[in-house]
Amino acid sequence: MKDFEARLKELGLSLPEIPPAAGAYVPAVQSGNLIFCSGQGPYKNGAFAYIGKVGDNLSLEDGYQAARIAVLNCLAEICSLIGSLNKIKRVVQIRGFVNSAPEFHDQPKVVNGASELVLDIFGDAGKHARCALGTSNLPMNIPVEIEMVVEIETK
Amino acid sequence: MKDFEARLKELGLSLPEIPPAAGAYVPAVQSGNLIFCSGQGPYKNGAFAYIGKVGDNLSLEDGYQAARIAVLNCLAEICSLIGSLNKIKRVVQIRGFVNSAPEFHDQPKVVNGASELVLDIFGDAGKHARCALGTSNLPMNIPVEIEMVVEIETK
Amino acid sequence: MKDFEARLKELGLSLPEIPPAAGAYVPAVQSGNLIFCSGQGPYKNGAFAYIGKVGDNLSLEDGYQAARIAVLNCLAEICSLIGSLNKIKRVVQIRGFVNSAPEFHDQPKVVNGASELVLDIFGDAGKHARCALGTSNLPMNIPVEIEMVVEIETK
Repeated sequence: MKDFEARLKELGLSLPEIPPAAGAYVPAVQSGNLIFCSGQGPYKNGAFAYIGKVGDNLSLEDGYQAARIAVLNCLAEICSLIGSLNKIKRVVQIRGFVNSAPEFHDQPKVVNGASELVLDIFGDAGKHARCALGTSNLPMNIPVEIEMVVEIETK
Repeated sequence: MKDFEARLKELGLSLPEIPPAAGAYVPAVQSGNLIFCSGQGPYKNGAFAYIGKVGDNLSLEDGYQAARIAVLNCLAEICSLIGSLNKIKRVVQIRGFVNSAPEFHDQPKVVNGASELVLDIFGDAGKHARCALGTSNLPMNIPVEIEMVVEIETK
Repeated sequence: MKDFEARLKELGLSLPEIPPAAGAYVPAVQSGNLIFCSGQGPYKNGAFAYIGKVGDNLSLEDGYQAARIAVLNCLAEICSLIGSLNKIKRVVQIRGFVNSAPEFHDQPKVVNGASELVLDIFGDAGKHARCALGTSNLPMNIPVEIEMVVEIETK
């Protein structure tokens, strides 16, 4: 029996408050034993921790940290529905969009900020399919937007 | 028992003809009780109602209206498979891509054109997870592309 | 009983080695009878067969061929999990992102490189929902990234 909540604490982390919705949607929706969460950026303590483009005003390391914060927000969304990380059976998919300068092509290394944290928390259950994508624009000019699908335990 | 078809009429709306496919795909696919639809733009009465970028030649309000038209096209795709909106149990996810001028960062307000209409039609069953994303380019230079996943009633 | 493996050979094709992961993720994940694969580009024989933007240094035909290679990589990812194309019941969804020059708007014709190959291999079981999207940037400056969801046979 895995204790993902204990592991999160061990990493010195805790789930944040869910960021306020930027529109007419909910944080996460369950269908069958899949949970689809809404896209999240690097919102932390009431504001975006990073604003701008990776490869322009932000470094690869900034982008990595932004992706790490964003995926914690995704997990907070999911837990708003199911109550605990321990109900997650496995992480199915992560999709990361990186707000990128024209000549920046290391989006996978940015999205690793999300992927590596998920592997740290969930171990084998964190092994996910992934898409890392670049774009020239994201909402509120955030550097990274992460979305996630997880599978939960069936009773 | 909800009557989403009646609600659509009450809103003065009806499902459009499905826009002609832009390639080698089908409007929607069912797997289990999920339906995945193909991406749609603001196609209406035989042509795109809006062409261009939000924040450039198009306003936020134009983008909002384009998203509203696009999500109706998504619902038309879904109904081509299941016959009636009333077979939808809930809307699971909406993803909206906004063709954006470089300094335009209000993609969530644009995608609200889709989200708010879905909430108007489906009420609680319309509460969905969402991703709003920006891009510099969409097919045929449309301002918005919407995709959608819904869950249908199991027998 | 369809033999998709035989059909692939008939087309003069074979599944490639899975490209090395660009980050901390796995090629594909199964949840229920859906398989979600990771995003793939035109990686072939140890390198990307195409680099750059469609409508800029690459032609529409280059993009089409890149999408065709990318979707074969997606199928290789899926088969790394299930062993054979013959276990696929149907292709559910393809999403294609095209790294596009500003004035290039024929993304659907590019993504047809993936869609038409899938229809060639799977016939009716290959009819999928699709999103074709444009962007100004993709990882490693590849011209196309394809992701795919398939449904497998239940026992």
